[in-house]
Amino acid sequence: MRATVMYEAGDVRIENVPDPTIVDPTDAVVRVTRACICGSDLWPYKTMEHNETGRVMGHEAIGVVDAVGADVRNITRGDLVVMPFAFSDGTCVFCHEGLQTSCVHGGFFGTVDVPGAQAEAVRVPQADGTLVVLAVGDDDALLPSLLTLSDVMGTGHHAAVTANVRPGKIAAVVGDGAVGLCGVIAAKRLGADQIILLGRHPDRVALAREFGATDVVSERGGEAVERVRELTDGYGVHAVLECVGLEQSELTAIQIARPGGAVGRVGVPQDETMPASQPAFYNNISVSGGPAPVRAYIEELLPDILEGRIEPGRVFDRVIDLDEVPDG
Amino acid sequence: MRATVMYEAGDVRIENVPDPTIVDPTDAVVRVTRACICGSDLWPYKTMEHNETGRVMGHEAIGVVDAVGADVRNITRGDLVVMPFAFSDGTCVFCHEGLQTSCVHGGFFGTVDVPGAQAEAVRVPQADGTLVVLAVGDDDALLPSLLTLSDVMGTGHHAAVTANVRPGKIAAVVGDGAVGLCGVIAAKRLGADQIILLGRHPDRVALAREFGATDVVSERGGEAVERVRELTDGYGVHAVLECVGLEQSELTAIQIARPGGAVGRVGVPQDETMPASQPAFYNNISVSGGPAPVRAYIEELLPDILEGRIEPGRVFDRVIDLDEVPDG
Repeated sequence: MRATVMYEAGDVRIENVPDPTIVDPTDAVVRVTRACICGSDLWPYKTMEHNETGRVMGHEAIGVVDAVGADVRNITRGDLVVMPFAFSDGTCVFCHEGLQTSCVHGGFFGTVDVPGAQAEAVRVPQADGTLVVLAVGDDDALLPSLLTLSDVMGTGHHAAVTANVRPGKIAAVVGDGAVGLCGVIAAKRLGADQIILLGRHPDRVALAREFGATDVVSERGGEAVERVRELTDGYGVHAVLECVGLEQSELTAIQIARPGGAVGRVGVPQDETMPASQPAFYNNISVSGGPAPVRAYIEELLPDILEGRIEPGRVFDRVIDLDEVPDG
Repeated sequence: MRATVMYEAGDVRIENVPDPTIVDPTDAVVRVTRACICGSDLWPYKTMEHNETGRVMGHEAIGVVDAVGADVRNITRGDLVVMPFAFSDGTCVFCHEGLQTSCVHGGFFGTVDVPGAQAEAVRVPQADGTLVVLAVGDDDALLPSLLTLSDVMGTGHHAAVTANVRPGKIAAVVGDGAVGLCGVIAAKRLGADQIILLGRHPDRVALAREFGATDVVSERGGEAVERVRELTDGYGVHAVLECVGLEQSELTAIQIARPGGAVGRVGVPQDETMPASQPAFYNNISVSGGPAPVRAYIEELLPDILEGRIEPGRVFDRVIDLDEVPDG
């Protein structure tokens, strides 16, 4: 089959690789009908060292089940399924706690052992715990939004949950990428009264306003902090959704939080340390978040997509074929 | 009156200073009958630069109200009161949210404007919001425990609250100082099943066991992490009470937390940055805490002290007169 293989920073090729097969009896093989390029793919795209065998990329997909292992009970050949970016057994202590990204038998796609989903097909370990069957047709107009349940919508929701967004509160979203935009949807959905987006891409900012952002701050650093304070009676915001992961964005996130507020981090942190430990401490600001247990959130978010209350699929700004992935 | 004045690191003197008087109509003057030396006094004791006028130390006290300003309504001359380490108006938005340490009209004792309580008397700003009347006699045997409501018991409780201690969960307390020991009391009080103390002072460890610590880890660094994992089926603990504030203790706190766990920081952080940002992120560990709003906790903790269910006064290991404070 054809698949997207990254060999080193900047070197992405579409190649023929062996078809995936059932390795463990808990596996499924899924024929991929939709997949995404993720903002987090940019990190290896910028930094990956050369690797002879390469890495099949991609951790977000919708597809049709092609085969299941002998121990798979809930997934059947022919099912249309969505695949979270992490696989998980659904039965361990962390899965029971809703933290499937820490599953003791779980892991991530796009490794040597578990190739990724920017391919014609993908092997999904722990199929029963991982995959969710979608009761829609494969050509359904909702598929782009359903595809975001693989990662970006669940991740934006995780930022909002860990930032403790509550009805009537003020939220800020740092970053206007796909996750930041889904963070706006999530903050609105959880009842935030005021939603301040920190971003400067005109098209994304416009979409954020449609999703519910009430204010946009295009400044950065100290000027952004100043501006957010102006918008919040000088106090800062209750809930900050940090959707970037750079030192500057983490610093800004802590600086715009009001005393007793919370920062929910979903941007993969690029530094060993977290900035502004003392301001966070003196203002009793909590810093939470991490890889989103999107599997846990699918049941909650799915009805809102199926019934048209949220349209996270609008965050996708380009649709391409597999062959165009390197260009994408 | 006599008061404890710090002029620079290591230079603490008992001197005669002007008697405190009512400055603002919301003030009270309290004749101090009990006060403490705090672990946090050690930071200026180690690092304070020379100051010509000096700083009157002390932020924890019990005393008898000697005078009140014209606007004070709830406090009367002759009341026995406990004084939280921060003053607060009790009416602002943060006070209403239970975060009195961020009161918009609040502040801390031991500054040039608001001298501290290691003295014969102290001026207490915002007396109505700050002071809590104690319905006991001034020679009551409970006074040491009631005095901990000024700071250490409320601070240990804040660590437990922000570390999200819940019935049946596993807690760890990093540090066996007065706050750490109160953290053990708080974790036990909030229902933790297993309480692991990280400390190595034999007398404090023994007291921690009496307070409810089930395990003691005297190792440090990687060995301590290893030991805590052995005690917790390899997963780590749900709730970490960080009661030190050094880089090493913060690192250990994050490393012993299990995925989805929480670190509640009450040790004043000595570094600009927080370590282990990436492990905290990948394991979805939240880092919360800060200066404890002890004023908010007095109502909850007071009955337990009055009825003998907790005895935080036992954390005091030496009783001295005002004249002995420099030696203390």
